[in-house]
Amino acid sequence: MQLVECVPNFSEGQRPEVMDAIQSAAGSARGATVLDRHADAIHHRMVLTIAGPPGPVAEAAFRAVRRATELIDLNMHRGVHPRIGAADVVPFVPLGATPMQLCVELAQRVGRRIAVELDVPVYLYGEAALHPNRRRLPDLRRGEYEHLAANIATDPRLAPEFGPARLGPACAVAVGARQPLIAYNITLRTADVGVAKAIARAIRESSGGLPGVQARGFLTADPNVVQVSMNLLDFRRTPLHVVFERVAAEARARSVDVLASELVGMLPAHALVDAGKHYLRFGQLEASAVIETRLLEHALGAE
Amino acid sequence: MQLVECVPNFSEGQRPEVMDAIQSAAGSARGATVLDRHADAIHHRMVLTIAGPPGPVAEAAFRAVRRATELIDLNMHRGVHPRIGAADVVPFVPLGATPMQLCVELAQRVGRRIAVELDVPVYLYGEAALHPNRRRLPDLRRGEYEHLAANIATDPRLAPEFGPARLGPACAVAVGARQPLIAYNITLRTADVGVAKAIARAIRESSGGLPGVQARGFLTADPNVVQVSMNLLDFRRTPLHVVFERVAAEARARSVDVLASELVGMLPAHALVDAGKHYLRFGQLEASAVIETRLLEHALGAE
Repeated sequence: MQLVECVPNFSEGQRPEVMDAIQSAAGSARGATVLDRHADAIHHRMVLTIAGPPGPVAEAAFRAVRRATELIDLNMHRGVHPRIGAADVVPFVPLGATPMQLCVELAQRVGRRIAVELDVPVYLYGEAALHPNRRRLPDLRRGEYEHLAANIATDPRLAPEFGPARLGPACAVAVGARQPLIAYNITLRTADVGVAKAIARAIRESSGGLPGVQARGFLTADPNVVQVSMNLLDFRRTPLHVVFERVAAEARARSVDVLASELVGMLPAHALVDAGKHYLRFGQLEASAVIETRLLEHALGAE
Repeated sequence: MQLVECVPNFSEGQRPEVMDAIQSAAGSARGATVLDRHADAIHHRMVLTIAGPPGPVAEAAFRAVRRATELIDLNMHRGVHPRIGAADVVPFVPLGATPMQLCVELAQRVGRRIAVELDVPVYLYGEAALHPNRRRLPDLRRGEYEHLAANIATDPRLAPEFGPARLGPACAVAVGARQPLIAYNITLRTADVGVAKAIARAIRESSGGLPGVQARGFLTADPNVVQVSMNLLDFRRTPLHVVFERVAAEARARSVDVLASELVGMLPAHALVDAGKHYLRFGQLEASAVIETRLLEHALGAE
């Protein structure tokens, strides 16, 4: 049984009735589950977490995108978060033993359907990207909607993978595939935010640190505690425990104690299985050895 | 959403058609899932693992017990494993955040139903025991079926909690509640099985070691590797990582290297969450933070 997640981001974080309508559309696909909804009025953005077998999740994602293109006019949208469309990004994420390739194919299938049925330009990104400069969202979104609107008809570098090279009010959609993202913080017992910033610099990929790790140093509400705040973009390549041990070593080198780990949101069972394998030296340990995971496979397989 | 497991043991490990019939009876209860079946012809015994919400699991367990009492005559049964009945033991096990008390109540409810509808004596054991000398199965099963058959009518110490003080061909059933059992081995790089035996002695509860830990030392197929083979009867009280670190320390004290951990069967998500909390210093981490666990709650809650 294959299991995937889809985490679509919509350019609407203020009008509850619009957010409700998009969430309802996602929830109307039988067999898919909307696990979470997170909205931010400042970012003017909503993120849904949908999970289940591939077919139902693809259907749920399509329905949510369709509703968003009906209800959101990007000409009216101002928020602090970069965006190119009403349904801005639609990443498919493998869970459990599901191969990434399945999510790449889902992204292609759903991307094509969005383009054909909704007449919207679709860009493939992440693991589903066909062009190297569309792998990373910041590259794809450079200049945002306004840049696209001005140039999509004339600049061949902006030609979408699917759909027309022109924008309606719903603009464009980036559909892709990626590993689950783990939002992970480590707190340190010091008043000096410089320590958190220095450790963040030491571990993040963009300054030569760990692959797939984004990191920043922050103050916290407690003046004697600072925080290294991270996104782990590829936890199979750089597991949780590698990040923890590296931050702990960097803190030790600065004579600072690690206080605690904090998870923001959820993590896949595999991340804990990987940590268990490392610390407890399990030669073999699969997510399917977890009772809840096995039961989930049965519960969903029975539908 | 509450989630429980039931791991009934039946005195039949040889006739496939009888085992199939019992498993089918368990599987016929809507909403419960038979996750696993393990049978052993020498022990002449079959173990089913049923999981799901409490109501469906209770129904599945009852149906399996009813079928077993119809098909198994304990007068014909000879095996190496101690037993008192056709359906020998029926433990209910809490999963996730489900409280033990719920499983105690399930055991009482199903025990009473077995007694009333099947006219079979029922003993409550484990966390559901009403008498201290019925908490442990070895105490409850002392003398086995043959001792019960000879004395149940006359010895008040053998009076069942529910049902008649007389035996039919299906004999008696022990119904109870307990924590999930984790079957866990650690291999050591030495040819000396004495090291494994000494470490097993040092860590097992019965010789003053860790609470809820059963342990024995064994040779393995590799002459340079021995094994400490364990049952963790209460992983919330004595977590996996406590056992691992203790065995590693005992091995270190004998200048022996720990090779690897091995899991026999499955483990609950909570066991890995507990290990993650310990090694990665998560202040808070719940099984519901695991995507698969959350998805399972939705999948089952939707039924």
